[in-house]
Amino acid sequence: MSKRALISVTDKSGVVEFSRELNNLGYEIISTGNTFKKLKENGINAIQIDKVTKCPEILDGRVKTLNPYIHGGILYKRDNQSHVDTVKNHKIESIDLVVVNLYDFEGTLKAGKNHDEIIENIDIGGPSMIRSAAKNYKDVTVVVDINDYDLIIEKLKTNNLTLEDKKRLAYKAFSITGRYDALISSYFSEELEDTYPEILNLTFQKEQTLRYGENPHQNGILYKQSNAKNPILNYEQLNGKELSFNNLNDLHGCLEVMREFKDSDKVVSVAIKHTNPCGVGLGENTFEAYTKCYEADEVSIFGGIVGITSIIDKETAQKMSEIFLEIVVAYDFTSEALEILKKKKNLRILKLSKIESSLQPYDMKYIDGKLLIQDKNNDLVNEYETVTEIEPTAQQLKDMEFGMKVVKNMKSNAIAIVKNNQTLALGCGQTSRIWALKNAIENNSEKEFTGAVLASDAFFPFDDCVTLANKYNIKAVVQPGGSMNDKDSINACNKYSMSMVFTGIRHFKH
Amino acid sequence: MSKRALISVTDKSGVVEFSRELNNLGYEIISTGNTFKKLKENGINAIQIDKVTKCPEILDGRVKTLNPYIHGGILYKRDNQSHVDTVKNHKIESIDLVVVNLYDFEGTLKAGKNHDEIIENIDIGGPSMIRSAAKNYKDVTVVVDINDYDLIIEKLKTNNLTLEDKKRLAYKAFSITGRYDALISSYFSEELEDTYPEILNLTFQKEQTLRYGENPHQNGILYKQSNAKNPILNYEQLNGKELSFNNLNDLHGCLEVMREFKDSDKVVSVAIKHTNPCGVGLGENTFEAYTKCYEADEVSIFGGIVGITSIIDKETAQKMSEIFLEIVVAYDFTSEALEILKKKKNLRILKLSKIESSLQPYDMKYIDGKLLIQDKNNDLVNEYETVTEIEPTAQQLKDMEFGMKVVKNMKSNAIAIVKNNQTLALGCGQTSRIWALKNAIENNSEKEFTGAVLASDAFFPFDDCVTLANKYNIKAVVQPGGSMNDKDSINACNKYSMSMVFTGIRHFKH
Repeated sequence: MSKRALISVTDKSGVVEFSRELNNLGYEIISTGNTFKKLKENGINAIQIDKVTKCPEILDGRVKTLNPYIHGGILYKRDNQSHVDTVKNHKIESIDLVVVNLYDFEGTLKAGKNHDEIIENIDIGGPSMIRSAAKNYKDVTVVVDINDYDLIIEKLKTNNLTLEDKKRLAYKAFSITGRYDALISSYFSEELEDTYPEILNLTFQKEQTLRYGENPHQNGILYKQSNAKNPILNYEQLNGKELSFNNLNDLHGCLEVMREFKDSDKVVSVAIKHTNPCGVGLGENTFEAYTKCYEADEVSIFGGIVGITSIIDKETAQKMSEIFLEIVVAYDFTSEALEILKKKKNLRILKLSKIESSLQPYDMKYIDGKLLIQDKNNDLVNEYETVTEIEPTAQQLKDMEFGMKVVKNMKSNAIAIVKNNQTLALGCGQTSRIWALKNAIENNSEKEFTGAVLASDAFFPFDDCVTLANKYNIKAVVQPGGSMNDKDSINACNKYSMSMVFTGIRHFKH
Repeated sequence: MSKRALISVTDKSGVVEFSRELNNLGYEIISTGNTFKKLKENGINAIQIDKVTKCPEILDGRVKTLNPYIHGGILYKRDNQSHVDTVKNHKIESIDLVVVNLYDFEGTLKAGKNHDEIIENIDIGGPSMIRSAAKNYKDVTVVVDINDYDLIIEKLKTNNLTLEDKKRLAYKAFSITGRYDALISSYFSEELEDTYPEILNLTFQKEQTLRYGENPHQNGILYKQSNAKNPILNYEQLNGKELSFNNLNDLHGCLEVMREFKDSDKVVSVAIKHTNPCGVGLGENTFEAYTKCYEADEVSIFGGIVGITSIIDKETAQKMSEIFLEIVVAYDFTSEALEILKKKKNLRILKLSKIESSLQPYDMKYIDGKLLIQDKNNDLVNEYETVTEIEPTAQQLKDMEFGMKVVKNMKSNAIAIVKNNQTLALGCGQTSRIWALKNAIENNSEKEFTGAVLASDAFFPFDDCVTLANKYNIKAVVQPGGSMNDKDSINACNKYSMSMVFTGIRHFKH
């Protein structure tokens, strides 16, 4: 008895050639609607589905394969005599190969179609057939990926399609149907503004197998969230080796700082090490911004990432090429700049799409079998409220905003000492706030802090930070406020003739 | 014409009462197999499915509802005259309410059944009906959650089931089917040892809506991964407010350090601030361990988390209650200890299941629309290889292992100075390695480091760390090795009569 294949595909690439090979291998082909039409036009010997179902396609194709002649033919166990007898008695013929790809729900969504069209593109018959075939994979081969056609034919020709192969195909089938319904439920969650549903289905596609993970003994992979809106890692690589796990993580940190300055009329240059900014400079042009960023910390930048919200020119490229950097990322590069930078074979040069606001509603931390998820931290300050007798100067206020944009993106506890749109000293990731400040100052002991602004990612539990700042002639402080002991810090500021501004928004980051 | 409900449920809780109410509301009930039997036994007026499908249930129930009389009755558009005519011509009767819950695939999995039973518990007909009804939610009400029965009845009674309600039910339906197939594909991925598939479907269930996220202006939620194995956050809360987002994140950090010592014959006490350890002590008993941990850094521990791999006794509880802690987590508490600690109303007291090896294959970082995923870092060292003329002493070797366990769990760049199973000075999260060491020493300037061991999470790029360590009389160093300049550090050690040991495994953590 000849084998039978059921073929019903939305993406018809390669289906004619595949079907012809199946015909040649002796398969009888059953097919539906447009797939049938396409096969017949191309001289493939195929049977229309209603000859099998003994029932026409109805409701504009909404119901054609949801039929016991189809699902019985797929689902019966070939090694179960009672099953074999049942299908025989009901004149249900075996279906041994199921080739289905689904209505393009994702494409319809991406094309911005209206709700009715999106709903119409939810495939019902397709997933049912795929799932039937995958469940019965021991007896039925399920093909859901057009890229598998050639291999399947080759294996069939050599009679070499193993149980393991069929299990892998079933696995892929359930991955596809799982992803499909994850995308549908995610569409509904957006429609119904339910960011944090009871059941959270996330689906990702592999983008790149990395050389290794955070460390060489760990495998690492980069995935793309299937329905992500405007992901921040969106660049063209112009030079250098492929990005590593740590490069991608650091790059993300770099782009998040750049994003803080996306609407600025100035150029920002950011240097990142171990996900933390080590230098940030805001300038009238690329060279000024980079110079400020570089001079902010000429040591930590070594082996780091530099990001610039503008075009890199020859002069800047020359200065950059004097040190070892892992990545340079910018909106563009002059041809002279590119030529200079490309001389460094290993330097990863990335051209960035102009940086936009984040459209992802959340970020998350995976904690060993559980997930902490939260709103993305898209705010900066509520308002700048002076809480001291002395008001900050206009320049200090500008530096306060600059400082908050930097300190928000540092690991907590974090302190930034800034002046004239440049970081002078940064203290991050400390288990105690005073240490963050002390380390920032001591690590930059050669610097002069007179006139600088101190920014803190969270409130001061004591007045020790203010007292230490004053010792170094730092006379303006910006911080969220909110400690029971705020008054102590305010009093200390008043005593030392310092200004202090509260922002009302804390920026812990871990 | 009376409305018709199709009811086919695996979990039969409440289905009799629900059906009776539907009967009372004038619904004709169609039902399958065991659901039908149960309804009839309880005096519900129901029609067996084969009266509708004009076809028996076949193949041990594998095919019963996959039938045009069912799916036509669900899927036809009531406001489309051609659809209405079609179902009339084919004598397909309307199905207006679909009540389905699925074969318990997840339960079968958790019960450790064999492969064939697991596969048999993949529901085919159920998801098809759910998806048909959800697609046509404008005309059909889909009920997939037994907890929705009461509300549905109430709404039907008051003629108050809105389009928005039906859309929410459809949303829940696709969430359920998405999750179902995510679990199936994840089962296959384990079977086929494919940790990092092309399509990665992750599914989570909401566990707790948190007061807020990392900061008060962010919403935060805790989810449980549906198929997580032995998640590390597994405790009973004995006292205090519910855990916050940052508590959970810090607790995770704490438990990961405790896990490093799970097989030790000693007790470990860990204090955590901002996800980083600030003090770690290993002792013969709880009190000794806690005292060492506390004395390691008496300042940072304020407001932190303390974890102990043993039972907390009265003496330790007393000492703990002298300072402000957010969380105490331990294997158990004596009744006296508990009484003392419970006097602090806000102190979160957590009793932990004995800590096990991690069974999650990976950890991950979500980076704004993309996902970095990697093998969980379950290793510590390859081997301890002395690379200097001088060998470390037995005690130093012990401290090296202790130091590596701590430094592995600190944010990079990280340095730990340890002695006699106690941390003396920790430097973490720095953008430069020498700063991590410098800060560790300067933040603990009152301490004596003679005889201590220095542990580093990654190699030294220069000999500056060795030189600085020697200045403080630290005479033994442990680090992964692997720098081009290893020789410089080794030479410096030999010059200063220090021992240095390579471990071969880097531990970057961000």
